[in-house]
Amino acid sequence: MQTRWQRIQNRLHNIVFENDTWAGRAFDITLLLLIILSVISVIVETIPALDQAYRPLFHVLEWIFTGVFTLEFIIRLLAVGSPIRYVFSFFGLVDLLGILPAYLSLFFIGSQQLVVIRILRLLRVFRILKLQEYTSAADVLAASLRESRAKITVFFVAIFTLVITLGAMTSVVEGHTNGFESIPVSIYWAIITITTVGYGDIVPSTAVGKLIASLIMMLGYVIIAVPTGIVAVSLTGVANRRELNSQACPNCGRREHDTDAVHCKYCGEKL
Amino acid sequence: MQTRWQRIQNRLHNIVFENDTWAGRAFDITLLLLIILSVISVIVETIPALDQAYRPLFHVLEWIFTGVFTLEFIIRLLAVGSPIRYVFSFFGLVDLLGILPAYLSLFFIGSQQLVVIRILRLLRVFRILKLQEYTSAADVLAASLRESRAKITVFFVAIFTLVITLGAMTSVVEGHTNGFESIPVSIYWAIITITTVGYGDIVPSTAVGKLIASLIMMLGYVIIAVPTGIVAVSLTGVANRRELNSQACPNCGRREHDTDAVHCKYCGEKL
Amino acid sequence: MQTRWQRIQNRLHNIVFENDTWAGRAFDITLLLLIILSVISVIVETIPALDQAYRPLFHVLEWIFTGVFTLEFIIRLLAVGSPIRYVFSFFGLVDLLGILPAYLSLFFIGSQQLVVIRILRLLRVFRILKLQEYTSAADVLAASLRESRAKITVFFVAIFTLVITLGAMTSVVEGHTNGFESIPVSIYWAIITITTVGYGDIVPSTAVGKLIASLIMMLGYVIIAVPTGIVAVSLTGVANRRELNSQACPNCGRREHDTDAVHCKYCGEKL
Amino acid sequence: MQTRWQRIQNRLHNIVFENDTWAGRAFDITLLLLIILSVISVIVETIPALDQAYRPLFHVLEWIFTGVFTLEFIIRLLAVGSPIRYVFSFFGLVDLLGILPAYLSLFFIGSQQLVVIRILRLLRVFRILKLQEYTSAADVLAASLRESRAKITVFFVAIFTLVITLGAMTSVVEGHTNGFESIPVSIYWAIITITTVGYGDIVPSTAVGKLIASLIMMLGYVIIAVPTGIVAVSLTGVANRRELNSQACPNCGRREHDTDAVHCKYCGEKL
Repeated sequence: MQTRWQRIQNRLHNIVFENDTWAGRAFDITLLLLIILSVISVIVETIPALDQAYRPLFHVLEWIFTGVFTLEFIIRLLAVGSPIRYVFSFFGLVDLLGILPAYLSLFFIGSQQLVVIRILRLLRVFRILKLQEYTSAADVLAASLRESRAKITVFFVAIFTLVITLGAMTSVVEGHTNGFESIPVSIYWAIITITTVGYGDIVPSTAVGKLIASLIMMLGYVIIAVPTGIVAVSLTGVANRRELNSQACPNCGRREHDTDAVHCKYCGEKL
Repeated sequence: MQTRWQRIQNRLHNIVFENDTWAGRAFDITLLLLIILSVISVIVETIPALDQAYRPLFHVLEWIFTGVFTLEFIIRLLAVGSPIRYVFSFFGLVDLLGILPAYLSLFFIGSQQLVVIRILRLLRVFRILKLQEYTSAADVLAASLRESRAKITVFFVAIFTLVITLGAMTSVVEGHTNGFESIPVSIYWAIITITTVGYGDIVPSTAVGKLIASLIMMLGYVIIAVPTGIVAVSLTGVANRRELNSQACPNCGRREHDTDAVHCKYCGEKL
Repeated sequence: MQTRWQRIQNRLHNIVFENDTWAGRAFDITLLLLIILSVISVIVETIPALDQAYRPLFHVLEWIFTGVFTLEFIIRLLAVGSPIRYVFSFFGLVDLLGILPAYLSLFFIGSQQLVVIRILRLLRVFRILKLQEYTSAADVLAASLRESRAKITVFFVAIFTLVITLGAMTSVVEGHTNGFESIPVSIYWAIITITTVGYGDIVPSTAVGKLIASLIMMLGYVIIAVPTGIVAVSLTGVANRRELNSQACPNCGRREHDTDAVHCKYCGEKL
Repeated sequence: MQTRWQRIQNRLHNIVFENDTWAGRAFDITLLLLIILSVISVIVETIPALDQAYRPLFHVLEWIFTGVFTLEFIIRLLAVGSPIRYVFSFFGLVDLLGILPAYLSLFFIGSQQLVVIRILRLLRVFRILKLQEYTSAADVLAASLRESRAKITVFFVAIFTLVITLGAMTSVVEGHTNGFESIPVSIYWAIITITTVGYGDIVPSTAVGKLIASLIMMLGYVIIAVPTGIVAVSLTGVANRRELNSQACPNCGRREHDTDAVHCKYCGEKL
């Protein structure tokens, strides 16, 4: 039998961590709005013109959000069975890091800046948005990325080797001048080039440097096909597996029926 | 029985809104040419050299197009059963916004500029180009984009969270200088970087900033694979379904059977 | 019976236009080398330092290539049945345009510049490279592009409408300054942005302009998925159709056998 | 019977070239760490600030790594049956080029710079990382790239012809000024544009030049779909073939049967 505290804790848990009750849903949506508002406030505060004009307002808003999120954090601590495990979970840490800097700013000048970390709380969007269609879409995406993990790792190792080798070569060719001073900067340039970003803050000036740059660009242009192919193939696989009825026909035993099939498409037997 | 006015309205409707008669087709093609000409005129008018040389000509052309499109708008109002519903429909609003600014410019200086809105009328191209092949191609594209809606939404939420978080981090790291003054501008930079556009008007100057930039570039380079994979898979699905057995079941009349199906998958009847 | 002239013409045709004889192959490879050399000479000649040092050499080379290609052109004229049709064919025009500018330069100063047109002769590479594997690969690519024609047209119409609308909007928003002087230039900027090229020679400076730019970037980032999806789907289709044996089993009549199948995979009958 | 030396050589070979024993695995991981450390040292050494502060340290590290890698090279020479063949193999050359510059620097000033070549030793990562999952992923990627070789070659020939033709045209149109001085530089610009890198160091300034640039951008934006489609299709093919029935025919022993095959497609035997 549950004690009275356990019953309260259970109800709190349902409201704060789940969203299948009316109260849980209301809590989640309110929290989502507050997080978005606090993020907007943190972002807007950094615009010099607005900061000068409304600094006191931002200060007050800052402490209101800190207060509300502190309260939420305490409720979460009360609602879970083992508070320690929650604090050291991913979302526990994000929640704590979202309120800590404001308090630290009372003691240490400059830690105010870290309030920016509160932006990470936006990640809760994924937790809160448990709407059926989107979760399933996110599941398919996550599953197909997980499945392609090995291929993408190999791809990244290849890219890094390429970028380091070609960056270092260009650094030597360009004579360590004009932005190619050191190899790390040249690697940064090679990444800018192979990903087709092309800032243009560093550009080769020698003929050989331009030749290597052209090579990197062509490589980047074609190599992009590889992760795309990987993800497309794996998405097809995951999507197909979800879509095929895994049921075998009781008469002929054949599978691969569509999910909306009522009768076996080969022998006509009822599935 | 139709009154005489209804018969006229019907004929008008056939000409103005449909394109299966000779007159409707002629009307549509004339309109398309006029829209393209008026858009070219609006565009070309903004070239300083041409504007100075031919200002009176552009002025006349402007009023000719406004006159013709006003006439067309009135005919459309007459041709539909409920003019109010047409005015507040998407294309009704676009048509109205295409002629209004010219008239407003008689009363308010500067509203002339809004004639640019007329460019939106180009969207009628899609309405007019009802040629079989292209409509079916557009249908497949639209269907596959609609189908991937949930996945693309999840993808965009993820991108926005990434871009806000990494933009804010870079702003702090770069010390709110050199173009990273405020977080909104830093988010703008992160979008420029993750989409591999890379204007180069804002670039990180610290080592840590360059590291974060490299991370964003690599992310953007691989993440592009996700929408491509989504669209490719969904296009395959839509295309396949169109290739499905177009045969209807003789018993229940439902379609969408696989090409190798022998029995109806819904009722078991032999196909 | 063939006259003697027809026999000679036939042999010439085999050598100059076909590549299934020893002589035809030798002619093609020699021609390919000469074209590549002449293109390299035209390209290298424009490097200021080399031009000053070796101008006489380039002049001589220029006339040697013109002479050889003129001879080749005359032989081609003799080898075909109807010289007029050849001259007005695509490759005939390219061949003519490749030699004409050199002769024109004797009469008109400046037409020398047009020798650059000779680069178009590089397109003969595709004609000459009739190697089995590459032709079949090119066929698959061409077939899948041809098949996606309607979808790609719709895609381009959509892109153009977007680019014109958003370019004009940004031009108004940015107040026709800082590189957004006229709408054509703003459309050029929108194309630079939506294709993720991002030169950075024109960048928005107002907050609203940056917002529109971000929107165009995100659009460009996701829209790229559409042609990729189209081509991937159509390539799969073309490739599959080529790979499946269209032969039906003489016993059970089922198809979709692999090209290397000897027996029906369903009933075991010899194909 | 093996001589004592052959037994030792065998054991050495197992340790140095294989990684299925405990000792071989330890050797490989140690070597991988040393290579990564030496590469980091070579890279970091080029940062001006660090170079000035710690030059003696880098000098010592340099010689330690050279010593260790020389030892490793000698052991490899002893471990293989034919040392000559090893030295002239790809990895043998890379290993030799990794240590040679350090020794050359004793005699020739400046060859120190070539130590950068040591970065190529990073390629050993692929040799050492023989972990099951990654090797199989790399195999699939390599197989699908090998399979698309012909298509990608055709694609590259087409791109090069385009880039040369359009680059030369733009050079003429822009009047050989503003960065379009020579055709090679204009080709470099065309590559920057078609791959959507867009440095912005060279940009067209005439209206026609901007038109050609827009054309190249659109081409580059759509053409990227081709290699992506090629790789996606070929990856699907390779992945599918791996999923094929791994069962060998009991009669003729051949594999590669479809998963729904009942009879061997080569000899007709029941599977």
